[in-house]
Amino acid sequence: MPNKLTIALLQLSVGREVALNVRRAADSVRKLKVDNPRLQLAILPESFNAPYGQEYFPKVAEEVPKGPTCQSLSQLASELSIYIIGGSIVEREGDKLYNTCTVWAPDGTLIGRHRKIHLFTMSIEPANFGGVEFDEAAILSAGSEPTVVQIGQQKIGIGICHDKRFEELARIYRNMGCTMLVYPSAFCICQGPMHWELLQRARATDNQLFVVTCSPARDNMSGYVAYGHSMVVNPWAQVQREAGEGCEFIVEEIDFDMVDQVRRQIPIFKQRRTDVYAKATFDL
Amino acid sequence: MPNKLTIALLQLSVGREVALNVRRAADSVRKLKVDNPRLQLAILPESFNAPYGQEYFPKVAEEVPKGPTCQSLSQLASELSIYIIGGSIVEREGDKLYNTCTVWAPDGTLIGRHRKIHLFTMSIEPANFGGVEFDEAAILSAGSEPTVVQIGQQKIGIGICHDKRFEELARIYRNMGCTMLVYPSAFCICQGPMHWELLQRARATDNQLFVVTCSPARDNMSGYVAYGHSMVVNPWAQVQREAGEGCEFIVEEIDFDMVDQVRRQIPIFKQRRTDVYAKATFDL
Repeated sequence: MPNKLTIALLQLSVGREVALNVRRAADSVRKLKVDNPRLQLAILPESFNAPYGQEYFPKVAEEVPKGPTCQSLSQLASELSIYIIGGSIVEREGDKLYNTCTVWAPDGTLIGRHRKIHLFTMSIEPANFGGVEFDEAAILSAGSEPTVVQIGQQKIGIGICHDKRFEELARIYRNMGCTMLVYPSAFCICQGPMHWELLQRARATDNQLFVVTCSPARDNMSGYVAYGHSMVVNPWAQVQREAGEGCEFIVEEIDFDMVDQVRRQIPIFKQRRTDVYAKATFDL
Repeated sequence: MPNKLTIALLQLSVGREVALNVRRAADSVRKLKVDNPRLQLAILPESFNAPYGQEYFPKVAEEVPKGPTCQSLSQLASELSIYIIGGSIVEREGDKLYNTCTVWAPDGTLIGRHRKIHLFTMSIEPANFGGVEFDEAAILSAGSEPTVVQIGQQKIGIGICHDKRFEELARIYRNMGCTMLVYPSAFCICQGPMHWELLQRARATDNQLFVVTCSPARDNMSGYVAYGHSMVVNPWAQVQREAGEGCEFIVEEIDFDMVDQVRRQIPIFKQRRTDVYAKATFDL
C-alpha cells in the first residue's frame, strides 16, 4: 500500500505538569501503536506539554532539539519506528520564544521545525460566541519559514492554529506539491463554532489535499478553553473523521489516491490564471 | 443610511427565447422596485438571457454594449434609477466569444464589463453526485482582467461562477479594498452539494466581506441543470439569506458596518506575512 498512510490524532487532555503531560502523550502513542501495528504517523496537539497561556510560555520553554520534551519525542519515534508531528511546544532560542512544532522521523531525527508564522492576536467581542482576547505577539516571536516534511511519498505542509486562517500559506504548500496539511491547533471555543470546520474544508477544496487538525481536549476550567473536534478533511472537502470535545484518539487510514482523483476531475490547479494574478495591482 | 445597500437577487427561470428571457427579467426587476422602493442594486444570474450550453453560445452572442440585451439593461437601470449587475451573457467581439457580466449605473452607463477569467472545463465522474462534463474553453475565450465596480461607498469585485473556485482572484479583490464580491453563477447540481456554500463561506471568511451569488432557477429538463440556492454570505461567513431551487427573488439589506466589525475583531488582514509569502519559492 505505497500510497496510504495510517495516522493517529491524539486529542490529549493537558494538565499543569510538563513532565506528566509528555509521559501521558508518549504512553498514549505507545498503546495506539500496539493496538494498531500499521500506525506510521502520530500527531499531537498544539501546546500538548503545557497549558496554553501567556503566563506559562516562559516557564515551560525549552531549546529545540535539546530540551526534555523534544528528547522524549525523539526517543519515542525511534522506539516505535514511526513519524511524530509533535503538536507544539514553546521553544526558547536566546531571548526569544516561539510556538514551535517539531517533526520526528522513525530513526529519531528531527526532520522539521515549524515556528508559528501568524501569531494569534485577537479581540472578539463577547456578543460573538462569548468572545476571546489573546495576544501571542506580546510575548512570542513569529517564524518566517514555511515547513514541508517528506513522509513516505508525501509532502506534508505544517502550520499551527492561527496559520490556518491564511490561505496564502496553504497555497504555498499546494504549489510546493503537498498532498496533506497538518495544523496542530488549540482553536478557541469562540472561533470554533464559527470557523473551525470551514477553514479546514476551505483549504481542502482550494488546494485539493487532506487537511488534518489536532486540538487539545476541552477543559472548561482552564484559562483558555480549546474547541476540540480534531478532524480529518479529505480532498473533496468532506469531513472524513471528527473527534468530539473530550480526550479522544483517532486512528485513520489516509488514501492519497483520492488526491489524484480530485485533481484529475476538477483540474483547477492548471486552470489558475497566474498571468492575471501576477499583473494585478493592489496593496499587497 | 450611507453604509447600507438594498439588493435583489433574481433567481430567474430561463427559457429558450432570448427576448422573452430579457423581458421577464426586466419586468421582475420593475416589480421588485415597486414593492421595495429602497432597492438600489439588482443582480441577475449567469446566462440569464439564454440556456447555458455550448450549442447556444454562438447563436445568442451579442456585442457589448450595443447588443439588445445590453440595451435593455441600460434602459432598465436608467428607468428605475438603480444599479444592475447583469448576470452574464455571451459576448461577441470579432470572432471571439466571452462569458461576460455587464454592470450598469443608475444613469444607464456601463460601469463594468467582466469577462469570465477561469473557464469552466471539467469532467467529474458519475459516482460523485452524478458527475458533470463541460468544456467552456472549447468555444469561449477567457477574460484577463479583474473587475471592480464602485457602488455607493463600496467597491464590489465581480466574478462569474467558476471564478469563485480561485481564491487568488478573491484575494486580489480584497487587497484592492472590496467589501463585497458578486458571482453570477450557474453552478451545476453535481458540484453544488459539495462546494457551493463552502466556496462562498471560504471567500467570506478569508477576505472578511459579503459574498453574493445569483443562480438561474433549477430546470431539471434542461441540458445543464443549475443548482439554484442563490445566497448572501456575510463577513462572519454566516449564510444570511438563501434561496431554494425554484424561481425566487430575494431582497436583502446589506449592512457594511459588519465588514468593519469583523475586520476589527479578527485582524487577519494586517497579520498577513507578505514578507514570507513573497520569498516562498514554488512553481507558481
